[in-house]
Amino acid sequence: MQIQTTAAIIGGGVIGGGWAARFLLMGWDVRVYDPDPEAERKIGEVLAGARRALPMLYDVALPPEGNLTFHDTIADAVTGATWVQESVPERLPLKHKVLAEIIAHAPAGALVGSSTSGFKPSELQEGSKTPDRILVTHPFNPVYLLPLVELVGSSKSSPETFEKAQNLLTDIGFFPLRVEKEIDAHIADRFLEAVWREALWLIKDGIATTAQIDEAIRMGFGLRWAQMGLFETYRIAGGEAGMRHFIEQFGPALAWPWTKLMDVPDLDAALIDKIAAQSDAQSGHLSIRELERLRDDNLVALLRALRQQGSAAGAHLNHHEKIISQTLDNASPLETVARTVPVDWTDYNGHMNEGRYGQVFSDAADSVMRLVGADQTYIDAGLSYFTVETTIKYLAETHAGADIKVTTQVIEGAGKKLKLHHEMMGADGTLHATCTQMLIHVSLETRRSCPPRADVMEEVERLAATHGAKT
Amino acid sequence: MQIQTTAAIIGGGVIGGGWAARFLLMGWDVRVYDPDPEAERKIGEVLAGARRALPMLYDVALPPEGNLTFHDTIADAVTGATWVQESVPERLPLKHKVLAEIIAHAPAGALVGSSTSGFKPSELQEGSKTPDRILVTHPFNPVYLLPLVELVGSSKSSPETFEKAQNLLTDIGFFPLRVEKEIDAHIADRFLEAVWREALWLIKDGIATTAQIDEAIRMGFGLRWAQMGLFETYRIAGGEAGMRHFIEQFGPALAWPWTKLMDVPDLDAALIDKIAAQSDAQSGHLSIRELERLRDDNLVALLRALRQQGSAAGAHLNHHEKIISQTLDNASPLETVARTVPVDWTDYNGHMNEGRYGQVFSDAADSVMRLVGADQTYIDAGLSYFTVETTIKYLAETHAGADIKVTTQVIEGAGKKLKLHHEMMGADGTLHATCTQMLIHVSLETRRSCPPRADVMEEVERLAATHGAKT
Repeated sequence: MQIQTTAAIIGGGVIGGGWAARFLLMGWDVRVYDPDPEAERKIGEVLAGARRALPMLYDVALPPEGNLTFHDTIADAVTGATWVQESVPERLPLKHKVLAEIIAHAPAGALVGSSTSGFKPSELQEGSKTPDRILVTHPFNPVYLLPLVELVGSSKSSPETFEKAQNLLTDIGFFPLRVEKEIDAHIADRFLEAVWREALWLIKDGIATTAQIDEAIRMGFGLRWAQMGLFETYRIAGGEAGMRHFIEQFGPALAWPWTKLMDVPDLDAALIDKIAAQSDAQSGHLSIRELERLRDDNLVALLRALRQQGSAAGAHLNHHEKIISQTLDNASPLETVARTVPVDWTDYNGHMNEGRYGQVFSDAADSVMRLVGADQTYIDAGLSYFTVETTIKYLAETHAGADIKVTTQVIEGAGKKLKLHHEMMGADGTLHATCTQMLIHVSLETRRSCPPRADVMEEVERLAATHGAKT
Repeated sequence: MQIQTTAAIIGGGVIGGGWAARFLLMGWDVRVYDPDPEAERKIGEVLAGARRALPMLYDVALPPEGNLTFHDTIADAVTGATWVQESVPERLPLKHKVLAEIIAHAPAGALVGSSTSGFKPSELQEGSKTPDRILVTHPFNPVYLLPLVELVGSSKSSPETFEKAQNLLTDIGFFPLRVEKEIDAHIADRFLEAVWREALWLIKDGIATTAQIDEAIRMGFGLRWAQMGLFETYRIAGGEAGMRHFIEQFGPALAWPWTKLMDVPDLDAALIDKIAAQSDAQSGHLSIRELERLRDDNLVALLRALRQQGSAAGAHLNHHEKIISQTLDNASPLETVARTVPVDWTDYNGHMNEGRYGQVFSDAADSVMRLVGADQTYIDAGLSYFTVETTIKYLAETHAGADIKVTTQVIEGAGKKLKLHHEMMGADGTLHATCTQMLIHVSLETRRSCPPRADVMEEVERLAATHGAKT
């Protein structure tokens, strides 16, 4: 993965701040231009949220954070930038002015992504001498957690530009969805707009409140859409006859009055008051910061659930973790885990549940296995190590958000046996727990013990000799 | 919770089968009428999916399954039913005929819920002498996993009927959303219809494929909607200025061409072909059964993630688990855990990860704590037990879907110390693992050890004396 690269963020706020946070936490230097005197504070708040939540998505430590600097002019901010992200207010003349200034001062190879929700790339490119350098890269809030970014070009965008943008966005953890044909509001916001318009009608007509609408979504199809989206879900609904059957069955509803979207409600003061009052009644007991934290904790937990299943956004994160993984060094004792404790690991006592210590030490054993050559290919070939006994001593409490490390010694390694001693430490070096773990080499076919492959055994013996001598 | 109660399912298929499965797995007897000669097979398939997935949502065993019987007439099927669920095809004259027959033969106190997507309750009640007994109870696929059911009545529905229906639906795990004013397609399907219409346009116009649309949803706002829905999400987007600011900022988009929903696409053969072909390209490598399993595994993992956070559908499930929890008996050794291993507990070796054994034994210790009086109230008052050392022996592999039990002996209990010995067994009595666990009583305020409250210590000593004698 590229690190020590520079991004310029033109326009802070929630969206620009989210971009800044993602770049920084993935090891990029970030240079910000935003005329708002509050910009530094606002970006600082987004960054605090990102520093807390983003590392929890991964089971490895993120790269060292880049440097964040603030600049008084666009010309200064874009100096040395590989990527410039424009997130200024949605007014086309303003966007044209800002984009022209960026292009005039940024390095010749730098691309410019615009966070615009509504404008098409061809509109942004109007009047530019280098239209191919301007793309729409439309992210979703919270930008530091949600993988989706819509990557939209016009007929003036070259395949090379698309590819370069796609690679770079993937490096910092995004899932770039390439939109082939430009259209107002791109793709996702068109769905959001449709639902928004329908929701306005339901509230205006007194059919449902904001809270009821939220429950109608999150207790039902919201859960489907977090993992399969629309069409794969409906393919299943069609049953064995598939998609065609589904459409034939539900097609007639298109002619029925199942939505009011032939018409748009008048967003007058009365309707705004009604929505604001209902929203206060629903969520007013929580501050925006508390709501943000709740949202981020839920997103971390949902995304980690999908990671474990290897599905949807989880599959994407698993892939990205491989990109950011640091290679294990061969020191004695080995550093086998470096990670942040995620929010889904704590229990009613407010600390990391004892089961999660077991998982951390299981991950530490996996690191040792990879190091000795018992990696995924080895496992796919039908050989592995199973744990037969562990003893864990819990010495200090561990909390969500804590950075932890595990060092490991191979204290016995002969034949089928592999005995490990792990020490788990906090960021300040405090010892949180120790674990002694006996593993036995097995055949995954017979599920019985058997000797490891010769090269694996040799490596285990070598480590045992090195570490044993120092114990 | 009510058990040994009877539900009649009129009309099987995916929806009726889902209702049957939820009732059965929550301990109800289920009597099915469906003239389709394939009904028994079709319901059997839905039931197999439900038996696999639904128990994984809970951290306790479900009640014993009820009896499933098939009947040749509606009159026979509704005998003795407390609840009748109608899920026949969406044709109003057919619904009227079936509902009249149900009312004629069902016990006088039985309510009738209709799974209709499109008809209003007043339409279903037309011509009925007992309209108050007929309600819309509209569920979402998969009915055995998604909590949402829309509960809709008309002006002829009494508050008592609503309350009775609401309690009963809650007992079997649903989240009944009461819709106050009837409307075509109720609430959730209006949003689905809006998105569906917009999606048809995007495909017809070649803007996006079915796969791209699914990614645009599940990599972005689908994750938001699984936990907060629409309005709470937008409240955050409004920032510190809240909902009003958000509306004022995005209101103007209502006048922009951000959706094509002023018009409805013609669902002709060409468009149907296009969608079916794209869906085949996207998901055709998986059978419907495989897709269903993938969906259910993902839903289990997502719902369990929300349970852990105590949020949205997870908060609802936590509440429902309390309803179904069996009280712990006081036998020696104690049975401290009885549950199904969920899909999110396995690792690359295809079996339950060692960390999850730690979690099961942690749960077993929690059961003992509750039994001796160190329950949630005690913890809220600032006292608890922390684990200081565990030794686990792994004796047999454990797989997702397995029913497991843990029995526990208190082998030492004096002063601040509580030492437990756990044995984890499979459904056939095979010993899967043992764990010896030392806990120390602590003050949650000082985070240091201290003696338990007198009544708790007395109960711990009593158990230690009883169990110690038998060890």
